[in-house]
Amino acid sequence: MRTSLSLIAVLCLSLLVSAQSQAQLNLMPMPSSVQVGTGQLPVTQTFGVDVTGFHDASLDSEIERFATRLSRQTGIPFWSKPGTVPTLTIHADHARAAVQKLGEDESYELTVSDSGAKLTAPNPLGVLRGLETFLQLVQITPTGFAVPAVTIKDQPRFPWRGMLIDVSRHFIPLDVLKRNVDGMAAVKMNVLHWHLSDDQGFRAVSKKFPKLTGMGSEGMFYTQDEIRELIAYAHDRGIRVVPEFDMPGHSRSWFLGYPELASGPGAYTLADGGIAPAMDPTREETYKFLEKFIAEMAKLFPDAYFHIGGDEVDGKQWDANPKIQAFKQAHGMKNDQDLQAYFNRRLEKIVVKNHKITVGWDEVLHPDLPKTIVVQSWRGQQSLAAAAKQGYSGLLSYGYYLDLMWPAARHYAVDPMSGDAATLSPEQQKLILGGESCQWAEWVTPENIDSHIWPRNAVIAERLWSPQNVTDVASMYARLNAVSLDLEWLGLSHRSARMHMLHRTAGDADISALRVLADVVEPVKDYNRWDETKQGPIDFHGALNRMIDAVYPESDTAREFAGLVQAFLQSSATDQAAEARIRASLTLWRDNDARLHPLLDQSFLLQEDEPLSQNLSALAAAGLAALDYIDKAQPAPDAWKTQQLTLIEQAKKPQAGLLLMIVSPVEQLIQASAAHN
Amino acid sequence: MRTSLSLIAVLCLSLLVSAQSQAQLNLMPMPSSVQVGTGQLPVTQTFGVDVTGFHDASLDSEIERFATRLSRQTGIPFWSKPGTVPTLTIHADHARAAVQKLGEDESYELTVSDSGAKLTAPNPLGVLRGLETFLQLVQITPTGFAVPAVTIKDQPRFPWRGMLIDVSRHFIPLDVLKRNVDGMAAVKMNVLHWHLSDDQGFRAVSKKFPKLTGMGSEGMFYTQDEIRELIAYAHDRGIRVVPEFDMPGHSRSWFLGYPELASGPGAYTLADGGIAPAMDPTREETYKFLEKFIAEMAKLFPDAYFHIGGDEVDGKQWDANPKIQAFKQAHGMKNDQDLQAYFNRRLEKIVVKNHKITVGWDEVLHPDLPKTIVVQSWRGQQSLAAAAKQGYSGLLSYGYYLDLMWPAARHYAVDPMSGDAATLSPEQQKLILGGESCQWAEWVTPENIDSHIWPRNAVIAERLWSPQNVTDVASMYARLNAVSLDLEWLGLSHRSARMHMLHRTAGDADISALRVLADVVEPVKDYNRWDETKQGPIDFHGALNRMIDAVYPESDTAREFAGLVQAFLQSSATDQAAEARIRASLTLWRDNDARLHPLLDQSFLLQEDEPLSQNLSALAAAGLAALDYIDKAQPAPDAWKTQQLTLIEQAKKPQAGLLLMIVSPVEQLIQASAAHN
Repeated sequence: MRTSLSLIAVLCLSLLVSAQSQAQLNLMPMPSSVQVGTGQLPVTQTFGVDVTGFHDASLDSEIERFATRLSRQTGIPFWSKPGTVPTLTIHADHARAAVQKLGEDESYELTVSDSGAKLTAPNPLGVLRGLETFLQLVQITPTGFAVPAVTIKDQPRFPWRGMLIDVSRHFIPLDVLKRNVDGMAAVKMNVLHWHLSDDQGFRAVSKKFPKLTGMGSEGMFYTQDEIRELIAYAHDRGIRVVPEFDMPGHSRSWFLGYPELASGPGAYTLADGGIAPAMDPTREETYKFLEKFIAEMAKLFPDAYFHIGGDEVDGKQWDANPKIQAFKQAHGMKNDQDLQAYFNRRLEKIVVKNHKITVGWDEVLHPDLPKTIVVQSWRGQQSLAAAAKQGYSGLLSYGYYLDLMWPAARHYAVDPMSGDAATLSPEQQKLILGGESCQWAEWVTPENIDSHIWPRNAVIAERLWSPQNVTDVASMYARLNAVSLDLEWLGLSHRSARMHMLHRTAGDADISALRVLADVVEPVKDYNRWDETKQGPIDFHGALNRMIDAVYPESDTAREFAGLVQAFLQSSATDQAAEARIRASLTLWRDNDARLHPLLDQSFLLQEDEPLSQNLSALAAAGLAALDYIDKAQPAPDAWKTQQLTLIEQAKKPQAGLLLMIVSPVEQLIQASAAHN
Repeated sequence: MRTSLSLIAVLCLSLLVSAQSQAQLNLMPMPSSVQVGTGQLPVTQTFGVDVTGFHDASLDSEIERFATRLSRQTGIPFWSKPGTVPTLTIHADHARAAVQKLGEDESYELTVSDSGAKLTAPNPLGVLRGLETFLQLVQITPTGFAVPAVTIKDQPRFPWRGMLIDVSRHFIPLDVLKRNVDGMAAVKMNVLHWHLSDDQGFRAVSKKFPKLTGMGSEGMFYTQDEIRELIAYAHDRGIRVVPEFDMPGHSRSWFLGYPELASGPGAYTLADGGIAPAMDPTREETYKFLEKFIAEMAKLFPDAYFHIGGDEVDGKQWDANPKIQAFKQAHGMKNDQDLQAYFNRRLEKIVVKNHKITVGWDEVLHPDLPKTIVVQSWRGQQSLAAAAKQGYSGLLSYGYYLDLMWPAARHYAVDPMSGDAATLSPEQQKLILGGESCQWAEWVTPENIDSHIWPRNAVIAERLWSPQNVTDVASMYARLNAVSLDLEWLGLSHRSARMHMLHRTAGDADISALRVLADVVEPVKDYNRWDETKQGPIDFHGALNRMIDAVYPESDTAREFAGLVQAFLQSSATDQAAEARIRASLTLWRDNDARLHPLLDQSFLLQEDEPLSQNLSALAAAGLAALDYIDKAQPAPDAWKTQQLTLIEQAKKPQAGLLLMIVSPVEQLIQASAAHN
């Protein structure tokens, strides 16, 4: 009876200490239940791990990787000494599935006291998740490295938490993918959606159709051994690999080697612009080809799911082909959507024949398709709910496009169950499997892809793992900063690459002034970078070595400055500490153009940033003047205000594809300085 | 006749423009002859390379690596387009030796005009050196990346330009060695001296004596395949690999598996302190063992040279062994030196039998040894000259110990031909083959070894490659800064590792204030770090995660500050720009302790640095006060001066193994402020 009572007490406590309030622990994704105790477990040179219950080679290597990472994180080499009492005991009940399954149990419990830690899970998948949590808990303290006493019970909210990496538009080598898989595992994601073919390149070797990579990849592709290597690497980290071969559109790269698949005459080159070619869905030969191709790929990729793409089919090639038009008429097809549905139905049967489940983008949703397919929504949250209402499973990617350069908070606010989905019945809600962030590769290279993905991807990972009520943005940014540092220990270069790229633009010069500018800019959002190429298609062979390619998608400096200005104005200008910090930043920025200008002049890559640098200094000067008015408690003159607002409007325009992110807070200062109390 | 005249004119010009004056080109090592032309060669996306004359697979892969590096440096992906006029033409006359030879021709000529570049060399070794020069010449300009028009004729001053890496005291994995080999090639070094065994670990697998690594390496060793891999990797980059197996001292690791080799009773552990054991030179079994061992290693390592160590034999174990004493008496040996010479003579015969040339440290120099051996001098420059006078070849390492934490300028000033060597006859001078920097590994891990080697190693490389009169220190530091940036493109982490290591000590906190402190400190010099372990031997299993392990061996910030103070005082305090910059630095430092203190308090790794941080702020305040006195043109009061000099004396003492490098310039300011004009 005593035991039951204390169990209830523990349960109540853990309800009281909601996940939301645990911001002091730098965990991301936040576990579903965290109960902080007293004391801490020291992590010293005698740290050791013991495994009770089930273990196999995979779990053993998992623990070895854990020890290596703990060592890197602390700088302490761990030397197993016989007779040492183990610090961390790991217990799994049974094995994982040989091929990781959707919905396989990922839960774990982690209990840490000042005398030891215990991690239990039904299977090694839960151990993986729990070890990531343990690593995030390790802190430096006045007495040594330590893990705070804590009881964590955790499981994911959604079973499908993925990231798409596009390796077609720019090829991404295997080692770069591996370190990103490490990053995904660190934030408990479990699906790598490998976008292996698109107009700009076919990246997976087919032995049956060697010309796919032989002519459609410019020599940049993965061998089947490499593909198996990445699948095994991901499996070891609890990550499924779902391949995507985009059909029938986004398929120009197929046609260099196999032009007979296309709906229009060739010849094709990867650099083509204009009409996006599409496969010919009316020829039986197309399906014969795909029968063989999918059979081969279905063997190569063990996952139960197979992504056929199906997005953005440009009907122009179909419309221009009289045979295809005749076929449509003969089969009573009203439009290209019907034709694509016909193609998808044929394709789906091939996929099923190979014992796989079909995944496709929004556009595959058509009444003719069976309910077994999974719809990945990129066009809006409502289509996810619409699919669920019709009985289709779905994944949300709308709102999770990392290439659109949104701030983390904007992704964080997107919930698969919000909007139309909130009105779904519990049964329909179960059809929403989760979501995927998407890293489309128009503007990335192996050099800067990490910084386009990280750390922002971690907040999408949290959205898909943590309870729905974990939404505090301030807590999110604090924890994101910590997880970002942790991710660098994994070998990701999302912070360090910027320095290299800035140095490249500056030659051997001191780049401190350049860093000041880089700290307060962000690339233009959404598809606005494409505006630069209005005169023609993107040159996928071009150099991505400008400032826009080097900077972080989100400026922490600007966000923090905006917060400071807000706090200062909300205090009715009485918060002197905030004002001092605001002045320090503005002074730095005001003086920066004079320091930076000589550098910009000397570099063809930086010349385009001159207006940006000038605007930063001008804005900062305006902000300082506004503060002077505020301090004097006299409203700024209208003429001055008008002049400054002209500057503001001008500074809001992108320069060299970059936005100056301090415009809004400076505008607030100007408005406040001119306000009559 | 016209041709000859212009040839002469060119020759004269190239004599006029001495290497010394070429500081504006960021070349290191400085070539023996550089003639700057007018114009520049653009490096654009159409850049292409053509090979005329000799080529083989090795040269082809050399050029491929060059293209990859040029691409990384510029961010430009190079796409070979048929029909493009090649930008760089490479011509080699004949092949390199299959096993790189001492003294093999490394010369090259590089001519760059605004229409193209031509690199010619007798063999691909010279091409390697020339391509490194080409990469260093690539600059960013207002119109694009470009190489200035230039004519370079270059060859090394010494044929043996090496670096020793100790992988025994701390194991250094193969990938870390590889990136350091890349760094060596970038500065035209040509010998990796691989210190493979010492008391703390035996790192090369012997198939004949598997217990050497099996019991003497704690599982950290190189397989023979890995050794072959590194040798091939180094060969591709024009670097010979000379193995060292240190005998008969520095050999404790051998005795864990083979205690019968030792002169005293075991048992042995790697962690032993106290008496350094030595091999028993009196037992025939010792030589039987070494016969087999050296035969195996001589096959594994193709280089013509084989290093037997021979340094620092601690005679205590010999003296304590009655049998060894009896042997000495029976053979009329006066002392342990004679006994070691006996051992070396026996060993040398084994080496010769395996068609290798023996290299050994200073102590092997003994009249009994044949003139064919090479003496590596670590105890002083004079021993190198002494050896040469006796007819022995020699290598200088004294003055090139990177682990002693000297500033680059101090290494730079050490010339193999200076001191006693300057008095050698031309014939004797030829015996001085060059030198080697040495990276002993008591205090390094794979994490920070790069920063202990680079960029300082580049100035030793220059000393050994460039003409003797290339000695300008200001030019050296300017070029060193550029080469340091270039080295990061090779994957070396000599700059980036510091940030990771500082973050570790600070948890998730903002480290900008910590960086300010880290920027102005250096580790204690020479063997002073060992003072901390006076109570016992170094714990080679310990963590190297303190601030002393993270900081750079040399503080650029402090050196530049000292230069500024000097310029200011030399201007009789009239250089206002200098004063403004001095004040800015001093103000930053004065205010830093208040920012940093909370961070130091919270980290067990940083608490020891608190006095350092306080001293920095106090010194900066003193410096500012001194400037105030100087500005007022009134001598500072004696009492104040005395007080400040007490502070100076206290701040000169190392704290936590670190020296505050701004003490001297601040002392100069104080002295100047108190001076009566």
